[in-house]
Amino acid sequence: MIFAYEKLAHCGRARAGVFHTPHGDIPTPVFAPVGTAATVKGVPPRDLKELGATLVLANTYHLYLRPGDELVARLGGLHRFMGWDGPLLTDSGGFQVFSLQDLRKVDDDGVTFRSHLDGSTHRFTPEKVIAIEENLGADIIMVLDECPPPTQREVNEQALRRTHRWAERCQRAQTRSDQALFGIVQGGVFHDLREQSARFLMALDFPGYAIGGLAVGETKDQMHGVLDLLDPILPEHKPRYLMGVGTAEDFFEAVARGVDIFDCVLPTRLARHGAAMTNTGRVNLRNQSLAEDHGPIENGCACYACTHFSRGYIRHLMVAKEILGLYLASIHNLHFLLNTMRQIRESIFDGTFEQLKVEMLPRLTSTA
Amino acid sequence: MIFAYEKLAHCGRARAGVFHTPHGDIPTPVFAPVGTAATVKGVPPRDLKELGATLVLANTYHLYLRPGDELVARLGGLHRFMGWDGPLLTDSGGFQVFSLQDLRKVDDDGVTFRSHLDGSTHRFTPEKVIAIEENLGADIIMVLDECPPPTQREVNEQALRRTHRWAERCQRAQTRSDQALFGIVQGGVFHDLREQSARFLMALDFPGYAIGGLAVGETKDQMHGVLDLLDPILPEHKPRYLMGVGTAEDFFEAVARGVDIFDCVLPTRLARHGAAMTNTGRVNLRNQSLAEDHGPIENGCACYACTHFSRGYIRHLMVAKEILGLYLASIHNLHFLLNTMRQIRESIFDGTFEQLKVEMLPRLTSTA
Repeated sequence: MIFAYEKLAHCGRARAGVFHTPHGDIPTPVFAPVGTAATVKGVPPRDLKELGATLVLANTYHLYLRPGDELVARLGGLHRFMGWDGPLLTDSGGFQVFSLQDLRKVDDDGVTFRSHLDGSTHRFTPEKVIAIEENLGADIIMVLDECPPPTQREVNEQALRRTHRWAERCQRAQTRSDQALFGIVQGGVFHDLREQSARFLMALDFPGYAIGGLAVGETKDQMHGVLDLLDPILPEHKPRYLMGVGTAEDFFEAVARGVDIFDCVLPTRLARHGAAMTNTGRVNLRNQSLAEDHGPIENGCACYACTHFSRGYIRHLMVAKEILGLYLASIHNLHFLLNTMRQIRESIFDGTFEQLKVEMLPRLTSTA
Repeated sequence: MIFAYEKLAHCGRARAGVFHTPHGDIPTPVFAPVGTAATVKGVPPRDLKELGATLVLANTYHLYLRPGDELVARLGGLHRFMGWDGPLLTDSGGFQVFSLQDLRKVDDDGVTFRSHLDGSTHRFTPEKVIAIEENLGADIIMVLDECPPPTQREVNEQALRRTHRWAERCQRAQTRSDQALFGIVQGGVFHDLREQSARFLMALDFPGYAIGGLAVGETKDQMHGVLDLLDPILPEHKPRYLMGVGTAEDFFEAVARGVDIFDCVLPTRLARHGAAMTNTGRVNLRNQSLAEDHGPIENGCACYACTHFSRGYIRHLMVAKEILGLYLASIHNLHFLLNTMRQIRESIFDGTFEQLKVEMLPRLTSTA
């Protein structure tokens, strides 16, 4: 089976495994850097390889609008287009479209929206989204889902019915066998809806399950509650993907609740704002106090930025708005998250995950 | 002798040699990428190494203003600050200050100017400039010179007197023995002034001679005339540096006239404007006609951009204003110039420089 998930070890409910894809194995748990427009902002693919990235996410909504999924297909598909030969994941575009607020209108058949680029009108249906994702050709693709605010019961009930119908239609629409189509569990913060959603999608037997509609405004306790609920329900032999979650703190809490796959734009977005992620919280790299600092962004960090450049130099680059500053901060932040996930995975094999969590979590959240 | 120049071969008047510096040997002729604010825009030092850069230029004016030469000194000097352990060259800041037009006022003792960053008032004298360059600590440093428009005789006569006095004062002010201070030959397009300048500076016995005040508005013929004039005058056992010149066409014409060292911001500046330098002229990477182009920026090019990415992808990055587009174009343009210079150097050893020039020059200028 192309898309087998092998669970290799566990420590409490934390799982370590491997997910096999046509473009290589993904060791899990895994953090996927986000390359919205077919590029992880400012970071060449060879640097991603060097950083140990094993899965990269790209956005269906953005690529559909520009340069267009059909153009990407004619240029050999997304792997070849963006020069990344490892595993790729595309979302369904649903999250972006539903974030457009006044620019979109949903009905039972799909969603009509206006481009944020030029205001032109477009329509996503389950079938259309699958066709786009097949043109792009990622290894893991997502069903179209509706993403309502997580705490409004009635809206979530209605959205869930649509999300389930759309999941069925996406599954039927799929024609390629070399892409793993994941179902997306929705239901907001409501445990009965979440359980209903998980069981409905499990009956469709997807090769993996995403957990959507979290990290969008609910409390951490509410998020953890949903993860606690779903962990024993979701099948053990399929990967679980918590969409859009990507702080080191969240990694610990979610891995502890059985999650395998994460993605988030945070490391590169924070870098653009001059912020570094470290084991002891965030550092503002523009801070005047760093101007004469000889030390690296983070002591002991093995990334290219920390082994070659001082905080003083990186602050200078940030203040002078030099692109290299953004590059070095991105490299550091990506290394930080990828390395944290590697430590987590090793600790699961070693049976020391809980210790690592107890040791690192308070420091991570101290100043974040 | 730390700063010996060895002439190893010649082909006509084209010279191939090595210039020894405390941070390594510079094979000449050489092209130096420009890192204005202690960074070649968007290109990490390890990439510069990989591209085969052997000399990098940084700007005294910019670094004096931000982050300040004293701060750079406290952080270990420019090499350590910017993470470049190879040879470095700093200009004197004169060219930038004289480009400020209404923001500067020159007198016989020096030049007073206002910062382009915050309007604050500053003063450069020969002694001040040497102190700044000693704080920065580059391997090759430049005397303060006055850079008048090249075609006004009277202005050039007056400026030359100052430039010569300032050259003497710079030489007397120098305290470090691990930096090669180059004199700068001025005199605009006037051959008698140029010869007078060269002979005056040669009497001061600098370890190298720059040719300033060219590529600033005069014709190519005028530039070539000055180079033809200076070649037999300047000492054979010292390097000659043609400041601010950096197209492949210029390399051929100036190497043919005995020049050894070049620098220019063009490769990275053009990249930011979406233009690629190629053997057959410039390519506008934003051009719609490239949208579905599977080929590399330049066929046969061995750079990272050309061996991994299509024109179609790079055009997409440019249109989407993705930083990676700028990075890839910069890598390509730097490779193009550095590689052209390597070919030129090899052809001098092989005795085929004239053939290479005849072969490449018409193509280079065909569409540029």
